[in-house]
Amino acid sequence: MRLLVINPNTSAFVTETVVAEARRVATGDTEIVGVTGTRGAPIIGCRTENAIGTYEAIELAAAYSDDCDAVLLAVSFDSGLYPLRELLAVPVVGMSESAMLTACMLGQKFSMVTFGTRAIPLYEELVDTYGLAARYAGTVSLPPLSEDELRNPSLIIPALVEEIERAVTDRGAESVVLAGAVFAGLSGELKKKVPVPVVDGISTGVRMAEMLAALEFEQPTAGSHARPTRKNLQGVSDKFAALYDKLA
Amino acid sequence: MRLLVINPNTSAFVTETVVAEARRVATGDTEIVGVTGTRGAPIIGCRTENAIGTYEAIELAAAYSDDCDAVLLAVSFDSGLYPLRELLAVPVVGMSESAMLTACMLGQKFSMVTFGTRAIPLYEELVDTYGLAARYAGTVSLPPLSEDELRNPSLIIPALVEEIERAVTDRGAESVVLAGAVFAGLSGELKKKVPVPVVDGISTGVRMAEMLAALEFEQPTAGSHARPTRKNLQGVSDKFAALYDKLA
Amino acid sequence: MRLLVINPNTSAFVTETVVAEARRVATGDTEIVGVTGTRGAPIIGCRTENAIGTYEAIELAAAYSDDCDAVLLAVSFDSGLYPLRELLAVPVVGMSESAMLTACMLGQKFSMVTFGTRAIPLYEELVDTYGLAARYAGTVSLPPLSEDELRNPSLIIPALVEEIERAVTDRGAESVVLAGAVFAGLSGELKKKVPVPVVDGISTGVRMAEMLAALEFEQPTAGSHARPTRKNLQGVSDKFAALYDKLA
Amino acid sequence: MRLLVINPNTSAFVTETVVAEARRVATGDTEIVGVTGTRGAPIIGCRTENAIGTYEAIELAAAYSDDCDAVLLAVSFDSGLYPLRELLAVPVVGMSESAMLTACMLGQKFSMVTFGTRAIPLYEELVDTYGLAARYAGTVSLPPLSEDELRNPSLIIPALVEEIERAVTDRGAESVVLAGAVFAGLSGELKKKVPVPVVDGISTGVRMAEMLAALEFEQPTAGSHARPTRKNLQGVSDKFAALYDKLA
Amino acid sequence: MRLLVINPNTSAFVTETVVAEARRVATGDTEIVGVTGTRGAPIIGCRTENAIGTYEAIELAAAYSDDCDAVLLAVSFDSGLYPLRELLAVPVVGMSESAMLTACMLGQKFSMVTFGTRAIPLYEELVDTYGLAARYAGTVSLPPLSEDELRNPSLIIPALVEEIERAVTDRGAESVVLAGAVFAGLSGELKKKVPVPVVDGISTGVRMAEMLAALEFEQPTAGSHARPTRKNLQGVSDKFAALYDKLA
Amino acid sequence: MRLLVINPNTSAFVTETVVAEARRVATGDTEIVGVTGTRGAPIIGCRTENAIGTYEAIELAAAYSDDCDAVLLAVSFDSGLYPLRELLAVPVVGMSESAMLTACMLGQKFSMVTFGTRAIPLYEELVDTYGLAARYAGTVSLPPLSEDELRNPSLIIPALVEEIERAVTDRGAESVVLAGAVFAGLSGELKKKVPVPVVDGISTGVRMAEMLAALEFEQPTAGSHARPTRKNLQGVSDKFAALYDKLA
Repeated sequence: MRLLVINPNTSAFVTETVVAEARRVATGDTEIVGVTGTRGAPIIGCRTENAIGTYEAIELAAAYSDDCDAVLLAVSFDSGLYPLRELLAVPVVGMSESAMLTACMLGQKFSMVTFGTRAIPLYEELVDTYGLAARYAGTVSLPPLSEDELRNPSLIIPALVEEIERAVTDRGAESVVLAGAVFAGLSGELKKKVPVPVVDGISTGVRMAEMLAALEFEQPTAGSHARPTRKNLQGVSDKFAALYDKLA
Repeated sequence: MRLLVINPNTSAFVTETVVAEARRVATGDTEIVGVTGTRGAPIIGCRTENAIGTYEAIELAAAYSDDCDAVLLAVSFDSGLYPLRELLAVPVVGMSESAMLTACMLGQKFSMVTFGTRAIPLYEELVDTYGLAARYAGTVSLPPLSEDELRNPSLIIPALVEEIERAVTDRGAESVVLAGAVFAGLSGELKKKVPVPVVDGISTGVRMAEMLAALEFEQPTAGSHARPTRKNLQGVSDKFAALYDKLA
Repeated sequence: MRLLVINPNTSAFVTETVVAEARRVATGDTEIVGVTGTRGAPIIGCRTENAIGTYEAIELAAAYSDDCDAVLLAVSFDSGLYPLRELLAVPVVGMSESAMLTACMLGQKFSMVTFGTRAIPLYEELVDTYGLAARYAGTVSLPPLSEDELRNPSLIIPALVEEIERAVTDRGAESVVLAGAVFAGLSGELKKKVPVPVVDGISTGVRMAEMLAALEFEQPTAGSHARPTRKNLQGVSDKFAALYDKLA
Repeated sequence: MRLLVINPNTSAFVTETVVAEARRVATGDTEIVGVTGTRGAPIIGCRTENAIGTYEAIELAAAYSDDCDAVLLAVSFDSGLYPLRELLAVPVVGMSESAMLTACMLGQKFSMVTFGTRAIPLYEELVDTYGLAARYAGTVSLPPLSEDELRNPSLIIPALVEEIERAVTDRGAESVVLAGAVFAGLSGELKKKVPVPVVDGISTGVRMAEMLAALEFEQPTAGSHARPTRKNLQGVSDKFAALYDKLA
Repeated sequence: MRLLVINPNTSAFVTETVVAEARRVATGDTEIVGVTGTRGAPIIGCRTENAIGTYEAIELAAAYSDDCDAVLLAVSFDSGLYPLRELLAVPVVGMSESAMLTACMLGQKFSMVTFGTRAIPLYEELVDTYGLAARYAGTVSLPPLSEDELRNPSLIIPALVEEIERAVTDRGAESVVLAGAVFAGLSGELKKKVPVPVVDGISTGVRMAEMLAALEFEQPTAGSHARPTRKNLQGVSDKFAALYDKLA
Repeated sequence: MRLLVINPNTSAFVTETVVAEARRVATGDTEIVGVTGTRGAPIIGCRTENAIGTYEAIELAAAYSDDCDAVLLAVSFDSGLYPLRELLAVPVVGMSESAMLTACMLGQKFSMVTFGTRAIPLYEELVDTYGLAARYAGTVSLPPLSEDELRNPSLIIPALVEEIERAVTDRGAESVVLAGAVFAGLSGELKKKVPVPVVDGISTGVRMAEMLAALEFEQPTAGSHARPTRKNLQGVSDKFAALYDKLA
C-alpha cells in the first residue's frame, strides 16, 4: 500500500524526520510518501496558524492523494483530520488521534508532552474533540525549543524524561503521548528511562493507517463523514476544485 | 464605532441579508461594513467547506479589519472565531456564539434550528466547543432549502414554527437559536408564533460586539488568545503576511 | 428604558457603588433605579443568607418592578435570578451570569475572584447551574475583607492583581470574573495591571439587560420559565400576593 | 429520638399524609413531629414558589427545631436542604435526596415520576445539584392532579403504573423515585404492580435521618456546610435572628 | 434480621475487625454473620486481586446467604456488588457505596483516604461507576501499611488526621470516606480531631442494609439487576451451580 | 508472533468462529492460538456471568500465555482486560475496546449492536469505563438469538441491517460496533448493505495486538497497570499462584 504522510507545517526538515520514522515502523509492503506545506508557519503554534494548516492539509491532500491508500497527518494538532475524513475515499489518521487511542490501551490516563505553554489549551481542546477528556491527565510542557533543538530533539531527552516523570507523579499519568511531529523517533530512546509507556503518533499512526486500509472499511454514505455533495468551489486550487467537481 | 461583518460564504446575497438586519438592530452610532468570501462554497455545509471558510475568514479580516472596532462573524459555524480572537486587537463575536449565550439568559435549555441533517453534528460540536452541552436540547432541522428558499427564507416560516414547536415539546427546549445566516431577520416574524424566545445571532451578535467594544476589554497577553508571535508566513496574502510581520 | 438594579444585601453602600458603576456604563437613554434589601444579611456570605436574599430579591421585584423595562441582580450569587425570570414579564439578568457569559467571549477558561473561602463552593455550584463547568478554571480568593476594604475596595487592588496572576499561571485562566458586587468599578483600574481581561458583572449586566430589552424577546409560554399560574400565596407581602393574583 | 418533619407547603393535609407514613416506617423510639408552612403556595410548583418555600423551611426550622435530633424536609424539591444543613447542628435530610440515593442502591439508573410537566426541569436541576446526572434516566409525568387526586392519590395508581412502565421500557429506568410529598405511602401499593423498585422519599428519609443521628457525625467546622458566622440579620423572625445571634 | 457480612479478602483478622464494628452499630434485632474469603489475596490491592475477590464474593454469597436478610460487602472496592445485586433476592450493600452516599448527605464534596497509591485509580473508577464524580474531591493516601498497622490501625490515627486535613485544605473536601475495611471503627476516634465528618462504610453499610431490608423493596424483574436466567454453569462450586439451577 | 485468543465463555464453537476470523485478518507471520473457558456460562449474558468470566480469563491467561507475544480477549464485555493488562508483560487487547477505538477513527459517534436488552446497560458501562461516552450513540439490539442463530449468525444479517439503519437514522450513529464474539466475520457481509462502517472487534483486535507487540511498548512500572507485587494467593490454580510467586 501507499501511505501519504502530510506535514502541513512549512518545514521540510520535519517531514524528513517524520518520513524516516514512518519508514522504520511500516510493515514491508507499505510505501511512505511525504509532502510538506507551502502555506503557513514553519511550525504551527497557535490557532491562526492551525487554521491555515488545516486548509493547507486539504490542499495538499487534493494535490497528492490520488493514488494513495491511506493518509497520515504528521502534525500534532491533526490539522484537517475531520475535513479530510469526509473528503477522501481512503482512511485518514491523525498522529495525535492515533497516539491518544493507543495510549488508552496502555494505561488508564494519559498525559501529553509538548514544548511551550501556548499550545496546552489547544491540546486540551483536541482531547475534548476526540471525546477523551475522561482519559486525559493533562499536558506537561518543556520550555519553547530552540531552532537547534527542533532540528535535533534528542538534545532534550533529559528534559523530556523529567517532564514525563512529573506527569506520572503529579498527575497520575499511566501513559504519555509525545505531542509534536518533531518528536518522531524519540520514543525508543525514552522508553527505558521513564516508568510508563511513551507513545509517538507517527509510529502508531502508520500502523493504524495500515490497519484501516487492510480491513477495507467503507466510507460512510450517511452522517457528517459522508462525502460532501458537489458544489462550485471558488478561489481554491484547480486540483481541489476538480476533486469537488467529481463529487455526486 | 465601525463593525466589520464577515461572511466567509461566497454568496453575496447572504451578506446583504445579514447587513440589513445588522443595521436594523445596531445602536445609532454603529457603522456596519459587510464583506463576502471569495474562496470556498456559496453556503458552507460540511467540514471541508468550513475549513476553507475558516481560512477565508482570517484572510478577510486581514484585508478589511484595519479601521474597525469590532468584528462579527456572519456564518452559523462561527468559522474562524478563535483564530481571529487571538489575531486581532479588537473584539470578535460569532453569530452562533452570541445567540447561544443569549439563549442561556432566556431559558434553561436551547435548541438550534437548521436545514438539512448533515450539519447537525457540526452544531453539536460547536456547542461542545463553547462548553454549553449542559444547556443544549439538541438541533431540529428542516429539509434542505431550495435556492428560492435560501434567498427568501420567509417562505419557510410555517416549517420553522413546526420544528420549533417540536423542539419545545419533544426536547424541552426553552429557547431556540436560528442556525443559519440566511435566517437573519426572521426572529421578528417568528416570535409571536411560537411559545419560546427565538434568537437570531446577527441581532445578538451586533449588540454583543457593541458591548465588548464599549467596555474596552484588553486583549490578553497570556494564554491561547494572546496575539501570536511574529513568524514568517508563507503562501498567504500579502496583507495577512504583513499583519503577522507586525506582531511582536 | 428603566433598569431596576436589585441589591438583596441589606447594605445600602453596596447599592450606591453598584448604581454608580451602572450609570457610568449605561447607554444614554437608560435610567438606573437601585433598591436595597431590608431582610437578611448585610453581605450575603453563605447558603442560609443566600436563601433569604433570594426571597428578598423576589419581594423587592414585586415591590419595585412595576414600570421598569429590565432587572439587574446586583449580587454575585445572582440570588433570585431564575424565579424572577419566570415571574416577571421583563428581562432579568444576573451580574455573575452576564460576567461569566462575557468572559466566555474573551478567553477559553475563566476564573472567579472572591474574598474568603467559604463562598468558593457556592460559585462553583453557580457555574454548574449555568452549565459552564467546561469553561471554568476555578475560583481564587483574597482573605475576608474588612469593613474598610468592603467600603473602599480599591485598597485591595494589589491583592487582586496577585490573585488574578495566580489564576492565570496556576489555573490557565484566560479571563477573570470579579465575584462581588462591591468590586463594581474596579475592572478599569485592574485591566492595565493583569495579563487577561477582567470582567465586572455590573457593567456587562447593564449592557446585556439593555440588549435583551432592545431586542424585545417574548417571555416563554412553555417550559420552566413561563409565568407561574395563579395561586393563593400566603404570608407574603401584599404587593407580591397581588402580583400573583394577576397571573392567569 | 425526635424527628422534625418540615413541610414548607402551606397545605396541612400534605403534612398529615407525610407524618402518617413517617410514623409507619420509623423505628420504635423515634418520635415524629410535623410542621406546615404559613408562607407561600399550597403546593410548590415552580421556581418562585420554591424560593419562598426555601425561606419558609428555614423559618420553620428556626421556630421548631430546638429539641429535635434530626430534620426531614417533606417537599420533593428538598427546599432549604443545603441552607439548613449549614445552619443546624443536627442532621438534615431531603426526601428526594434520600430517595435518589436509595434508588442508586436498587438499580443502575432511576427515573422520577411527577405530575404536570412544569417541574421536570426543576427535578433535573435537583439531580444535577446532587451530582447524580449519570444515574438519572429522566422524569416521567402524569397530567396535573386535581384537588381530589392530591388529597387521595391512590386514585392515580393505574396512571402511575403506566408511567413507571414507560420509564422502564423507554428510558431504561431500573428504579423509580416518587417525586411528590403527596405520594407518601403509595410505594407499598405500587411495588407489586411494576417491574422495578419504587422509592418514596418519606420512608427512606426517615430511616436515613435515623441513621445519621445514630452515627453521630460531627457538623463540619470547615467548608460550605460549616455553621455560618454571627451576623445581624434584618427583617426575619425573632426566633431566626436569635438563632443567628447565638452563632460564633 | 440476619446480615451476612462478606469479606472476600483472605485475612480473617479483617473480618473480625469488621464484624466487631458491625455489631456495635447494628440496631437491637440484627444478627451479624461474618465470612472470610478462601481464594485470592490477604488484602486486595490491585485489579487482578479484585477480580479474584469479585468471584470469591459471589461464591461466598452462594455458600452462606441462604437464610440471611441482607448482605454487606466488607471490602473497600465493593468487589462483587453489582453481580450479587442481580443474583440475590435480598438487598446487597457495598461498604464504599454506602459510605459515599452518606458522605453526600454530610458535605458537598468528599475525599477518600486510603494507604498506598496503587489503589487510587481504582477508587476513582469506583466513584465513576457510582456516577458520583461530581461529588468527588479525590483520594489522599498514607504510605503502604505495615502488617502491624494493618492489624492495629489506631497506630496511624495521626497520619490519617494529617491526610484528612490535607484533603480539606487542598481539595475542598467537606466529608471524608475511609477506604479500607481495616479502618472499621476508627471514625469514632477520628471525628473529634478533624474539621469534617468521617464516614466508615461498615457502620453506614450496616444501617443502610437494615433500611433496605426493612422497607422491603422488590427485586426488579426488568433491567440489568433482574435475576439472571437459568443456565448451565460449569466449573463453579456445587452450591453456586445449584443456586443458578433454581433460577427461572 | 504468537497471539493468544482467550474466549472465557465455555462455548467452543464461539472460539472456533473467532479463531477463523482472527486467522483471516492476521498478517503473515502471526500465529493464532485459541482457548476456551471451562468455568462459567456458555455465553456470558449478565453481571454474575461476567464476573466468573473475568476470573476465568485470568486463569486461562495464567495457564496459556507463557510463550505468547500478545493476548486478545474474544468476549464482547472484554472480561478481564484491565487485570490482565497489569498481570502480563505482553500487550492485552479487548475486542470491544479495539472496536470502539477504531469506530472513533471512522465516524463521530458509534452505536453498538447486540442481541437481547439485558446487556445494554453493561455495554453502556463499558463505554464509560473506556471514557468514550462522548462518542457513544447508544446500543441497538436484536431479539435474543436462538441456539441456531448463535451458531450461524449469518441468518440474522437482515435483522442486523435493520438495526444498524435504525442506529444511523434515530441516533445519528456514524459507525457501528458489533457487540458479540459470535458476530466475528459478519462485517464483510454487512458492509455493503449499510450506510456506515461496521466494526468487528476480532479483526481490529488482532491488528491492534499486532501493532502493540510490534512497537514494543514497555509495561509500566508505575500506576495501576504496573505489575502487582508478590503475594501469597490462596485457592487459585497452581499455575496462577506460581505466576504470582514470580512477581517482584
